[in-house]
Order: sequence, then structure tokens, then C-alpha cells
Amino acid sequence: MKHTEGLEWAIHSCSLLAMVPTDFPLPARLLAEFYDLPEPYLAKQMQKLSVAGIVETRRGPQGGYALARQATEITLLQIVEAIDGAERHFVCTEIRRCGPTGVEDRFYTRPCGIARSMWRAEAAWRKELAAVKLSDIQKLGEDETPAEQAAKAIAWFQGKLQKG
Amino acid sequence: MKHTEGLEWAIHSCSLLAMVPTDFPLPARLLAEFYDLPEPYLAKQMQKLSVAGIVETRRGPQGGYALARQATEITLLQIVEAIDGAERHFVCTEIRRCGPTGVEDRFYTRPCGIARSMWRAEAAWRKELAAVKLSDIQKLGEDETPAEQAAKAIAWFQGKLQKG
Repeated sequence: MKHTEGLEWAIHSCSLLAMVPTDFPLPARLLAEFYDLPEPYLAKQMQKLSVAGIVETRRGPQGGYALARQATEITLLQIVEAIDGAERHFVCTEIRRCGPTGVEDRFYTRPCGIARSMWRAEAAWRKELAAVKLSDIQKLGEDETPAEQAAKAIAWFQGKLQKG
Repeated sequence: MKHTEGLEWAIHSCSLLAMVPTDFPLPARLLAEFYDLPEPYLAKQMQKLSVAGIVETRRGPQGGYALARQATEITLLQIVEAIDGAERHFVCTEIRRCGPTGVEDRFYTRPCGIARSMWRAEAAWRKELAAVKLSDIQKLGEDETPAEQAAKAIAWFQGKLQKG
């Protein structure tokens, strides 16, 4: 069981959007350049984030993606669900009712314990992800980004801003 | 992100093996019949459980699958990992080091906070699954199986035992 490959890209892109000035939307082209990613595939992830209302698209020559709300109002769970979907990972097809020993549906008054156990674990996973805000991710990023990279990134963004 | 379809089958099959007498191994054919599943696909899941040391194969005309250890010594996590693999769901490809602002690897002394946040949630999920034993699943199954089905199942197994 694996997340979509683009999930890592989407979280990093949101983290980057949380760092740049809000009046400086980033087109998918710049996001892709910043992380050395294939632009068409990254654009697909950004579109999913847009559909989920996590980022918004600003049009025009200076257009691009910006966060649709504050980084304190976006959780890691929301980003994960925007990219991977919000469906349960464990699908219960009620096989306990099948086969030669199954009985009529009306006799199954209690939900299947196997599904409940699997879903309880998923709930613990979701709870952890819901507790992490994009602002937390941004703070972690600031702490762990080498000073050398931070300086290069600021210079890179200043160059892009001046060109714009 | 979805589990392998066969995971539901594998957990139910283990639960069934926990219920039958230990001297009555079940061939994949009977397990498939009990749950109305496609035998070749179920056999693949049973093979994975065998590789993981959760079930063992008993050979001969009365052969089949039996639990390799007590139901109190098998966890839901072990079954899930046997079927879906034990790899992390979130793969970190370190894209923070890529692009025009990346710096030399030696400057990255702290692991990526995005990966750590994702893995912390996975750890919570694994902890929940590791806390559920197959004996717990078996107990849940006894509680929720309709009395009508339990009676039919006992009769079905008695018929199979007598034929054997």
C-alpha cells in the first residue's frame, strides 16, 4: 500500500506556498523548477489541491497558485485526502455473508469486527495527520533547511520577482 | 490508497483457521468455498501468509492450511504486512535537495519534517493493528456471527469432516 507518488510533491509545494509572500503566486512551472519535478505531473497534483480548496488559482501574467487559506487552517490530512482521496483504505465486502453457510442479511445485526478493527487503525492514522497543520510543516522546514539552501532560495525568489 | 483486495480474504481465512480444530487443516478449496471466493486468488494470499510464517501447509490427502502458531500469538499487523508488505506507505525521495536551490548532501543534517510527520501517522496506524490479536478477531467474530450462521457452519464443517 503506497501513497500516490505526487503526494510528496503536493505537500512540499504547499509548504513552499506557505513560505512565499501571499501576493506572489507560483505557477506550476516555478514549483516544478524549484523541486526539479516533471511539470505536467506536478500540475495534476496542484489541480487536485485546487479542487479540494487548499490552493487557489490566480489568473493573469503574474498568475499562479497561492494558498486558499492560512497555513494554520490547512492540515496534513486535508492535503493527503486531496491527493489520495478520502475513501477508507480497507474495503469490507461482507464476505462473512457469502458461501454455503451465509444466512439472510437481516440476521447480521452487528458490523464485522475485522472491518471495525481495520477502520479503528485508519482513524488513528487520520487523527495524527489532522493534528499536523501546514504551519507546523513550514516551521519544521525552516528548522531543517540548511542555511546555505535558505540563502540560495531567497536569492532565487528575488531573481524571479525582479524578472516578473 | 487501498489495501490489496485479498487482505479481507486473508484476515477472514485466518479467523476461520483459528476456529476449526488444529488437526483439521483447510485446503484453499474449502476456504474459498466457505467465503465464495475465487480459489486461485485466495491461494495466492494463503501462500503469502505461509511465506510470512502465519500459516503452515500440511501435506497429504487430509492436507491444507493451519495456523503456524496460536491465535494469541498472531497480530492483525502481521497479517496486513504479510499481504500488503511491510514497507512504508509514504516514500520520501528527498525532493527538498533537488532543483536550483539545493545544496550538497552534507548540509542536510536533519531529516525532512514532511516525511517524519507522515511516518508518525503510519506508526500510530501500525500500533493499533499490532494491538489486535487474531484471538481478538476470533472473539469479535463469535459475538457478531448470527446464531443461524454458526449452526449452519458447524453442520457444514461436520459434513466436510465426515467426508474426509
